[in-house]
Amino acid sequence: MQLPSTLLENAVSEFSKLPGIGKKTALRLVLHLLKQDVAEVQQFGDIISKMRTEIKFCQRCSNISDADICSICANSMRNQRLICVVETIRDVIAIESTQQFSGTYHVLGGVISPLDGVGPDQLNIESLVYRIQKEETEELIFALNPNIQGDTTIYYIQKKIAPHCRVTTIARGIAFGGELEYADEMTLARSISNRLPVGQYVK
Amino acid sequence: MQLPSTLLENAVSEFSKLPGIGKKTALRLVLHLLKQDVAEVQQFGDIISKMRTEIKFCQRCSNISDADICSICANSMRNQRLICVVETIRDVIAIESTQQFSGTYHVLGGVISPLDGVGPDQLNIESLVYRIQKEETEELIFALNPNIQGDTTIYYIQKKIAPHCRVTTIARGIAFGGELEYADEMTLARSISNRLPVGQYVK
Repeated sequence: MQLPSTLLENAVSEFSKLPGIGKKTALRLVLHLLKQDVAEVQQFGDIISKMRTEIKFCQRCSNISDADICSICANSMRNQRLICVVETIRDVIAIESTQQFSGTYHVLGGVISPLDGVGPDQLNIESLVYRIQKEETEELIFALNPNIQGDTTIYYIQKKIAPHCRVTTIARGIAFGGELEYADEMTLARSISNRLPVGQYVK
Repeated sequence: MQLPSTLLENAVSEFSKLPGIGKKTALRLVLHLLKQDVAEVQQFGDIISKMRTEIKFCQRCSNISDADICSICANSMRNQRLICVVETIRDVIAIESTQQFSGTYHVLGGVISPLDGVGPDQLNIESLVYRIQKEETEELIFALNPNIQGDTTIYYIQKKIAPHCRVTTIARGIAFGGELEYADEMTLARSISNRLPVGQYVK
């Protein structure tokens, strides 16, 4: 695809660096921006640059934040002794949107995965251990994706903080609305071995 | 979806103004940018702003251009007496990528569509008429989308420039690789009434 202008070509190649955006989609987006007011497009560029330059990560939990401490860590209404450990900021947003969790978070920034060259040092594990030793944490809830890397990470962290607090992980089982028939064997087997008394089952 | 930072929220809302990008995709793109170097993201913002501010439209054919006259109009190897009339810049790019057309273009910027409030005055029709009167144009090829608005536009322009040059429109018929069975009646009927002798058919 040959474009009639280098300015256009540069803009298209910038957009097509984004995940899931190919050259054709990039061109569509750029041509859309071309139709907008100059001021509006400049605002678009400025807001993106500003976001990257000025955004902070909470010093306590590594969540995205406008200040040094994020709004969740600074909120005294939330249970500061309960820490939910997640991989990414997207997981924080997902859990927050359930409105069922009133504790705080700790964003690891990934999971231990030797194959991808990610060791414990690249993750926010030190700060988590420090946090648990310093604060009077009551419970650590792991909400990592259910796979080998996630389990390795849980094992590694649990060893490090062993006697300090209670450690749990979110329930794994058949999803609400899912069908038994189509569940994989691992999930089905786990959901049977981790079965709950009916009275204890929270709707 | 509640986001933990206004900077993030602004960036997401800017991205979700783009066509075909919802809030979830916008968040994915913004979080991707957050992982990139500051310099890279600033370059992204700058290139987009610069593109909008500095890009020019060819004074002759209204195509996108880096200079006052676009590279196609400035190219003496191309047949400057042949004008292909298209709706948008995207059509220019599509025709150029076939590498089968060696004339010039004229970008109307849309088609006459009273229902959408688009009249001849909002389109680059005056400049086309002026161009044909000034230059020694031999043929005008209409490559508009085959619909009522396109046909109206062709009719309107043809009336305006009537005796000056030959006027043609790109062939409409069954697409290469298409199946007769699934073609709509209008297309099939036209392709029969506009049939060509087998020898005249260009592969």
